Amino acid sequence: MAIMRLGRVEVRCPNWEKSIDYYKRVIGLIETAREEDRVYLKAWDEHDHHSVILKKADSAGLEHLAFKCEFSSDLDLYEQKLNNYGIDTERVPAGTRIAEGEAVRFTLPTGQIVELYNQVEVVGNGLALVNPDPWPDGLLGMHPTRLDHLLISGEDVDGAIKIFTDIFGFHVSEQLVAGEKNDQTIAKWLFKTNTAHDIAIIKGPQNKLHHFAFWLDEWVELRNAADIMAKNDVMIDAGPTRHGVTRGTTIYFFDPSGNRNEVFCGGYITYPDSPTITWTEDTIGKAVFYFERELNERFITVVS
Amino acid sequence: MAIMRLGRVEVRCPNWEKSIDYYKRVIGLIETAREEDRVYLKAWDEHDHHSVILKKADSAGLEHLAFKCEFSSDLDLYEQKLNNYGIDTERVPAGTRIAEGEAVRFTLPTGQIVELYNQVEVVGNGLALVNPDPWPDGLLGMHPTRLDHLLISGEDVDGAIKIFTDIFGFHVSEQLVAGEKNDQTIAKWLFKTNTAHDIAIIKGPQNKLHHFAFWLDEWVELRNAADIMAKNDVMIDAGPTRHGVTRGTTIYFFDPSGNRNEVFCGGYITYPDSPTITWTEDTIGKAVFYFERELNERFITVVS
Amino acid sequence: MAIMRLGRVEVRCPNWEKSIDYYKRVIGLIETAREEDRVYLKAWDEHDHHSVILKKADSAGLEHLAFKCEFSSDLDLYEQKLNNYGIDTERVPAGTRIAEGEAVRFTLPTGQIVELYNQVEVVGNGLALVNPDPWPDGLLGMHPTRLDHLLISGEDVDGAIKIFTDIFGFHVSEQLVAGEKNDQTIAKWLFKTNTAHDIAIIKGPQNKLHHFAFWLDEWVELRNAADIMAKNDVMIDAGPTRHGVTRGTTIYFFDPSGNRNEVFCGGYITYPDSPTITWTEDTIGKAVFYFERELNERFITVVS
Amino acid sequence: MAIMRLGRVEVRCPNWEKSIDYYKRVIGLIETAREEDRVYLKAWDEHDHHSVILKKADSAGLEHLAFKCEFSSDLDLYEQKLNNYGIDTERVPAGTRIAEGEAVRFTLPTGQIVELYNQVEVVGNGLALVNPDPWPDGLLGMHPTRLDHLLISGEDVDGAIKIFTDIFGFHVSEQLVAGEKNDQTIAKWLFKTNTAHDIAIIKGPQNKLHHFAFWLDEWVELRNAADIMAKNDVMIDAGPTRHGVTRGTTIYFFDPSGNRNEVFCGGYITYPDSPTITWTEDTIGKAVFYFERELNERFITVVS
Repeated sequence: MAIMRLGRVEVRCPNWEKSIDYYKRVIGLIETAREEDRVYLKAWDEHDHHSVILKKADSAGLEHLAFKCEFSSDLDLYEQKLNNYGIDTERVPAGTRIAEGEAVRFTLPTGQIVELYNQVEVVGNGLALVNPDPWPDGLLGMHPTRLDHLLISGEDVDGAIKIFTDIFGFHVSEQLVAGEKNDQTIAKWLFKTNTAHDIAIIKGPQNKLHHFAFWLDEWVELRNAADIMAKNDVMIDAGPTRHGVTRGTTIYFFDPSGNRNEVFCGGYITYPDSPTITWTEDTIGKAVFYFERELNERFITVVS
Repeated sequence: MAIMRLGRVEVRCPNWEKSIDYYKRVIGLIETAREEDRVYLKAWDEHDHHSVILKKADSAGLEHLAFKCEFSSDLDLYEQKLNNYGIDTERVPAGTRIAEGEAVRFTLPTGQIVELYNQVEVVGNGLALVNPDPWPDGLLGMHPTRLDHLLISGEDVDGAIKIFTDIFGFHVSEQLVAGEKNDQTIAKWLFKTNTAHDIAIIKGPQNKLHHFAFWLDEWVELRNAADIMAKNDVMIDAGPTRHGVTRGTTIYFFDPSGNRNEVFCGGYITYPDSPTITWTEDTIGKAVFYFERELNERFITVVS
Repeated sequence: MAIMRLGRVEVRCPNWEKSIDYYKRVIGLIETAREEDRVYLKAWDEHDHHSVILKKADSAGLEHLAFKCEFSSDLDLYEQKLNNYGIDTERVPAGTRIAEGEAVRFTLPTGQIVELYNQVEVVGNGLALVNPDPWPDGLLGMHPTRLDHLLISGEDVDGAIKIFTDIFGFHVSEQLVAGEKNDQTIAKWLFKTNTAHDIAIIKGPQNKLHHFAFWLDEWVELRNAADIMAKNDVMIDAGPTRHGVTRGTTIYFFDPSGNRNEVFCGGYITYPDSPTITWTEDTIGKAVFYFERELNERFITVVS
Repeated sequence: MAIMRLGRVEVRCPNWEKSIDYYKRVIGLIETAREEDRVYLKAWDEHDHHSVILKKADSAGLEHLAFKCEFSSDLDLYEQKLNNYGIDTERVPAGTRIAEGEAVRFTLPTGQIVELYNQVEVVGNGLALVNPDPWPDGLLGMHPTRLDHLLISGEDVDGAIKIFTDIFGFHVSEQLVAGEKNDQTIAKWLFKTNTAHDIAIIKGPQNKLHHFAFWLDEWVELRNAADIMAKNDVMIDAGPTRHGVTRGTTIYFFDPSGNRNEVFCGGYITYPDSPTITWTEDTIGKAVFYFERELNERFITVVS
């Protein structure tokens, strides 16, 4: 019984046509299906049908995020655990969205809708399963290999984190704390895989998305991504730079609808016995932007 | 209950003084303890007391390999499972080697001694746990971040693999097969973490070590590692090149005692639902050395 | 008869002890000589005795810059040409500074003192001249390979540029222009070697230094340099980013005395027949910082 | 009066159609013109009409190599110098090949035909001359930025080198020597630009081409190039590896007609006062392949 990974995000896009073009041609995701108000996309090295769903909407933001579980039976088990914990759940029937099986849905104390699922159509990564080459031809734009993580905000950060650690077995890789005794949570970074974070939660406006991130393999791909942003008039929020938190390297930027994206690269490997690293509020600049050592106003205030 | 990672290898070193110098100054591991016939070493970004033990011996080879489990109670559980499976186990008392707690020991059908443990002294990675920098000063040589995986050989490959998949929950990321129906195993690559492999097993001489590998973060560090090998007269077996299997990039080379080392970088992320990739025997060159597309004789025949 | 390269800069350092430590340990230059009020430094891959002289002083700024000529006789020839052009010259006797031969000295219309020289002691780059390794051990900090270029400001930019093109045979690789007809020079980038620029001149305060730059071979070394800046509390002005002008990648930062430094990497190769690239004033942000597409106030106003 | 660069090579291709496809789609050169028995190609960042001419022929090899001079008048001056030196020249009329002006032609003591020219049509590098982006979209394959250098063989190496140094003002960056007194030339590497070599000459079969090389900016592009070779069944001769000579990193491989190509990256900057580095015959392995420290038989014996 286990969550395997952040499986998908569904993102609201008021600037509809431009956003579709952007995620396909500039980010370089691959379209796998389309409905009137949804476009289904995957990063090239993902095997599942989609990891990003664009949703036609009046305002930007996160429609839902979902974790893929190892077994079908995990849905029952997690549902029971959530209910025991006092959290209501509902079942999202198979076929509600294209290529997806049934899901268990609940709401985080920070306001975001989360789904747990196991069934989704597998379409492969474009490479043969026998004697494959290392990468396919014809990739576009930044072509990240996969969806990596997201950062969400809300009021009850500790409450949300407790669900991830107590029910889903996530661990805290890093935390940013405030207060004279450093005992007030500003943000925590959580991992279930061996990466530095699968999800992070920060104190802030309820039910908001700060950013979701795609994985790039190397620092040099960040330069390439930044070139592509400049060539395509994509607004860069910060970077290329390094995070103090996770040690990863990064660029933050905005999609045409106003959702913040990140391309993220690097960071250390984690295990259940990895120590939690703490950043104190006075070092918040370095924690977030290690090179600049100060936050920009936009980074703190703009969420979608 | 879970194995977290390949925790350590103990390697026999007939060329004793030169091997110690090599692992410390050329590879860039950090010595944490020493006995008359053992030197304990860790890669810089590992938190545990050691991941490599050099053992003074008359011939090269693998003394034992060990996996770190998440919980102390895992030792009892795995011991029971192994015994039920018909595999004898013994307990290695705490303190048998420096900084180590109790371990469960058994022998693979391919001949290697494996230990399972949970307790080991934690010494940290040289960085603060509060507001750390991304890397410490004063690193030497290639300074890999950590031990990554190993490749062992033996006669009953399928038998050994079955233990990893059935008892320990490993998955097969890739396999190299022979025979008209591609149903004979030459080698399989197994993962428990989200990396492309934690251990691999190849048909060959019983109870032998083909190589153990250290992790480097980037392709450019392989060039640096190769420079360091050339400057220090380290014999390179192959590389820098890419593997077909795992897509990782690599250099194989020998320690002064004749044990093959690897520096490995890259490869895709794995999950329990990752498909198994198959390489057929006619493509073995590309499977192992994607650029050269042929094996060198030494790579196939030399083990320790 | 030819200028071979920007041979040295002499920089005033009010923050004397900290600046010496910074250039040696953080930048990673090598000290080759010291007087009471001067420290002589070289980048590791330079063969001449020094390329940077730190001068104890009450305020930051550029004491002089100097070009190395191919032949001793070039001094006479250039002196004649300068005098014919109406520019006064004087001879700086050999031995005025350590390891230096005679120089011809004159003042640019933008106010900076320039010297031309051929003689300087050669100390080598730390590698053997027979069967050398590609790099020496023991380098510190960012360890750039060499001094690359500098950017100076003054009022009569066109007058200064004319001297470089007409007398010294420099070519203009790029220019930033203003005015309705794009006929007013804001800045020009000039090359004599095959690099994208050896010197650049920008309209601004008379006799000021905007920055001088060290060469790094690869984008990944910029990340390393930024890490070192953060670890050593060096103030970063901008970057890591890319320039529109020259396509080079860059970080700007300040020495402890307030002189702006750059580490620069990349850019195209130039030849005498390379076309001049023009940037218009409305695109000045992209010209200077291609990723951000806007200048920071500090970058425009702070000179030393 | 000066040679600016190696301007073009004309290469014989018996495997005609496959060679055209290879140079365009695999190497990633851009076709600018075609005749019945010639295809004209340029690397993307070159401004001139072509740098590589493929010539339909019965056997592989070098038809001619050519240097671009700064001024038209250089042709007269160099012709005079060559004649004074006892070397016959002839004039190749403008229009003999597409887009080319007049050239002066002569034969090296090592047998190769060399042309000197100034006039050639300029077609640009695909980027605007006003406010350009750093690279154009739509590049294919390895897409090197430019032709870099070539290595030719013949009997009278010293005679050929003397022409480059005495008449054309080239300098020797490195030399490989034999004999008890290290006074017999095996090979010399010559530069006129600030790169580590523009041409190299090695003792061997008369009038042969060992390889010609394209420039890549970074080590990571060599990995990409090797991937492309493997995906397209291009035979790799050696690499990715580093040269001892020039410190550059490299892959050698063969075009479908049997001409050896190289992608080359890095190496130090040179100036007229750069010291000459010497490699002794016992270190020839390290001189050529720094990582492997031994030559492969094919590399020594196969020329075209």
